[in-house]
Amino acid sequence: MTQVSDPRGRPAAGRPTDLIGKPASLIPTPALVVETEALDRNLRLMSDFFACRHAKLRPHFKSHKCVTIARRQLAAGNAVGITCAKLSEAEVLAAGGVRDILIANQVVGRDKLQRLAELARQCRLAVAVDDESQVRQLSAALAETGATVGVLVEVDIGLGRCGVPPGARALLLGRAAAAAAGIDSLGLQSYEGHCITVLDPEERRRQALASMGKAVNTRRLIEASGLLVRVLSGGGTGTYDMTGVMDGVDEVQAGSYALMDHSYAKRRPEFAIALSVITTVISSNGSDHAVLDVGLKGVGADLGPPVLAERPEDTIPRFESEEHASVRVGGRPLKVGDRVRLIPSHGCTTCNLHRRLFAVRDGKVEDVWPIEGSGCLE
Amino acid sequence: MTQVSDPRGRPAAGRPTDLIGKPASLIPTPALVVETEALDRNLRLMSDFFACRHAKLRPHFKSHKCVTIARRQLAAGNAVGITCAKLSEAEVLAAGGVRDILIANQVVGRDKLQRLAELARQCRLAVAVDDESQVRQLSAALAETGATVGVLVEVDIGLGRCGVPPGARALLLGRAAAAAAGIDSLGLQSYEGHCITVLDPEERRRQALASMGKAVNTRRLIEASGLLVRVLSGGGTGTYDMTGVMDGVDEVQAGSYALMDHSYAKRRPEFAIALSVITTVISSNGSDHAVLDVGLKGVGADLGPPVLAERPEDTIPRFESEEHASVRVGGRPLKVGDRVRLIPSHGCTTCNLHRRLFAVRDGKVEDVWPIEGSGCLE
Repeated sequence: MTQVSDPRGRPAAGRPTDLIGKPASLIPTPALVVETEALDRNLRLMSDFFACRHAKLRPHFKSHKCVTIARRQLAAGNAVGITCAKLSEAEVLAAGGVRDILIANQVVGRDKLQRLAELARQCRLAVAVDDESQVRQLSAALAETGATVGVLVEVDIGLGRCGVPPGARALLLGRAAAAAAGIDSLGLQSYEGHCITVLDPEERRRQALASMGKAVNTRRLIEASGLLVRVLSGGGTGTYDMTGVMDGVDEVQAGSYALMDHSYAKRRPEFAIALSVITTVISSNGSDHAVLDVGLKGVGADLGPPVLAERPEDTIPRFESEEHASVRVGGRPLKVGDRVRLIPSHGCTTCNLHRRLFAVRDGKVEDVWPIEGSGCLE
Repeated sequence: MTQVSDPRGRPAAGRPTDLIGKPASLIPTPALVVETEALDRNLRLMSDFFACRHAKLRPHFKSHKCVTIARRQLAAGNAVGITCAKLSEAEVLAAGGVRDILIANQVVGRDKLQRLAELARQCRLAVAVDDESQVRQLSAALAETGATVGVLVEVDIGLGRCGVPPGARALLLGRAAAAAAGIDSLGLQSYEGHCITVLDPEERRRQALASMGKAVNTRRLIEASGLLVRVLSGGGTGTYDMTGVMDGVDEVQAGSYALMDHSYAKRRPEFAIALSVITTVISSNGSDHAVLDVGLKGVGADLGPPVLAERPEDTIPRFESEEHASVRVGGRPLKVGDRVRLIPSHGCTTCNLHRRLFAVRDGKVEDVWPIEGSGCLE
């Protein structure tokens, strides 16, 4: 049983953990719920996939931001550590006992690099770089603490965000990292994120392999120069069985497979949707219009409106209020007080809006898990 | 000096309050910043507008979710209390010493109504209703605590969200509220939210007056029946000087005027933009492409991408990553480590993503304010 403290010390609200063992129908709404049976099945399925492969999982924390789930992902096996997006996420992971962490982003600035160097005394830590100034500043910060940090040179293979171009520039930066004191030059990171939204799996595979091929070629180029590349880390839930089985790829940074959402469900039907937001009807005209007690502040909508889990005839045509979801009711009427379960379009931006996850099994609250990484922006 | 505790107890990160008195350039990014000089000016301007009017302000907490700003809005004068969207927001406001609170939404369910009835023992509290079942359940909950709660019948004047239609249905519900024990039947609430996005002020005024006219007519109908209507509450920053000066309107629930954003700046040039998100360049190609350390998890983008405050030649054409903003650089190149200030399109959804607001004056950190209402969804 996990203790969830409420820093705001609300009066009369009761503690969420008081609900453990009680029916899920008593959870105050809106609330984020994970069906633990579906979660366990998803973790098992992904772990089994990597059981007899060269590449291993490095589950991405940014999708759920919940240290309890990260620990379960490691316990499920075939995982070498956890991926996260931010230094502050790495800090909560280390505080939660995770011992091998990759920050799959550039960490910039003297203060943050000092924090990073401090954190590296507590756990095995790696970070992505794409600029020589980052390597120099990181090395300087590490000189103060005497710790070691692994570095992955990020190579842009078509996403058009961070990273150096494939080829010679990556080799140069890898050499700089290998020469810098305190830095363990581990290898490369590449994310084929521009391919994961492709709906057709064969087209997605074609594009993802072509993209990741650039990273593998860069790896070969660096190795041919005599520099060791121990890790090429990349991939995600959309491509784990495509780029994750390529020769030269060592780690897959999948995250969404644990909880899923209705966007990924179209691309990855093998995983169950374990995440939902339970809501209450607060207004109804008794026929074709009803309003739920959640809006943009409780459901991430960057990939579209949520869908109603048990009511396929109902839709939320425009999801644009901060605290309301207006439902076009096509099925049986909804009345004030009815509870409705929503499936978000995007689990990652939804979890970040909540502070706790109600773990539910067989209709009962099994546990309440803090979402420690919620709001971890630094 | 406000104490900001970090419930995650991060190691080595330092406390945000350690920055008080130091240059704003030391704030770790991404961070939410309020220029207090602009904030003070906005609060003064809005308060002055209502100085010699019948209607008074009831500033909306949902825009900033910061109790310190709510207290300043009350202290600026011509305000009768605070508006909020959720019961949990009312709880943090009451805990922060606010004594007159309107929850401008339907609060549904036995547990929440018990919390509401409990809270009503600590402060003057009112809530919106649009269904007789809510009135009955609220009255039952109040019987247990002996407290009184004010009720505003919500009338839908065109927004198409919550509320009964104008006219007879509102009268019926007002009568039910007046007859229910523990309930103080205060009057009506109507929100002309469908008009506030109209860019042209004259067209906005025309639409807003026509909409709010339906609420005023409903008020007259109820009064003609012999039932007292003490309050008609509605409006917002987009219409405060339109519907806020109508005969029959008593309270204006404006919120965005305090901090502003770049959407409202087009409609309300009289208020200064006091809110921004400071970010750091984490990647750059040295010419036309740079990446900032904030994305959808730190800047609300439901009204469009943020804009760069001091760099009008630069744009963020697609703001769709969780932790990155890709800048199309049109001005002088950005290099890794540069700090860039972003103005959000929507302040309300942005504040909800942060835990603290750095109050800055003359380039120095003046204070750090907790955003107590962040994540208050219940």
